[in-house]
Amino acid sequence: MSDLENSMAAIIDVFHKYSGKEGDKHKLKKSELKDLINNELASFLGQIKDQATMDSLMESLDTDADSECDFQEFMTFIAMVTIGCHEFFEHHEDE
Amino acid sequence: MSDLENSMAAIIDVFHKYSGKEGDKHKLKKSELKDLINNELASFLGQIKDQATMDSLMESLDTDADSECDFQEFMTFIAMVTIGCHEFFEHHEDE
Repeated sequence: MSDLENSMAAIIDVFHKYSGKEGDKHKLKKSELKDLINNELASFLGQIKDQATMDSLMESLDTDADSECDFQEFMTFIAMVTIGCHEFFEHHEDE
Repeated sequence: MSDLENSMAAIIDVFHKYSGKEGDKHKLKKSELKDLINNELASFLGQIKDQATMDSLMESLDTDADSECDFQEFMTFIAMVTIGCHEFFEHHEDE
């Protein structure tokens, strides 16, 4: 597989690393999503400490309102963060 | 950075590896997108050979109808392919 395909597979792997911990093995509970962000996205997003931030993040991602984050909802989140990083790097290039 | 963050950075890098070739450095022309798919997504998507497939793919991705694929449109495409791969692997696990 190419670097791009390995990257896409790595995103699937990290989702399952956390979704498989408790409850529904194919979905992230709020606590699992919080652990994932704080452990795997700390450089890009920093640490999420307060519950209100976590509550509103889950609410915005949880488009089917089942109080959990499935892979499609997670991938939408990863896409938004990647787009945000891309814009950040592009603006800093132009300075 | 974590594996997840490296994967997200790799997606940004591969976009720029192809968008920087000709014309607008921050967008993929149809030929650049075709090269990217055929070189970097061959294991997941196979080769795109016919022009009609490429035309309809670009049309569906090009939401701002400027005949090019910007990073946001590209990331939406990557998200869809990753979701498709995730479903493929999940169904094969259940068999």
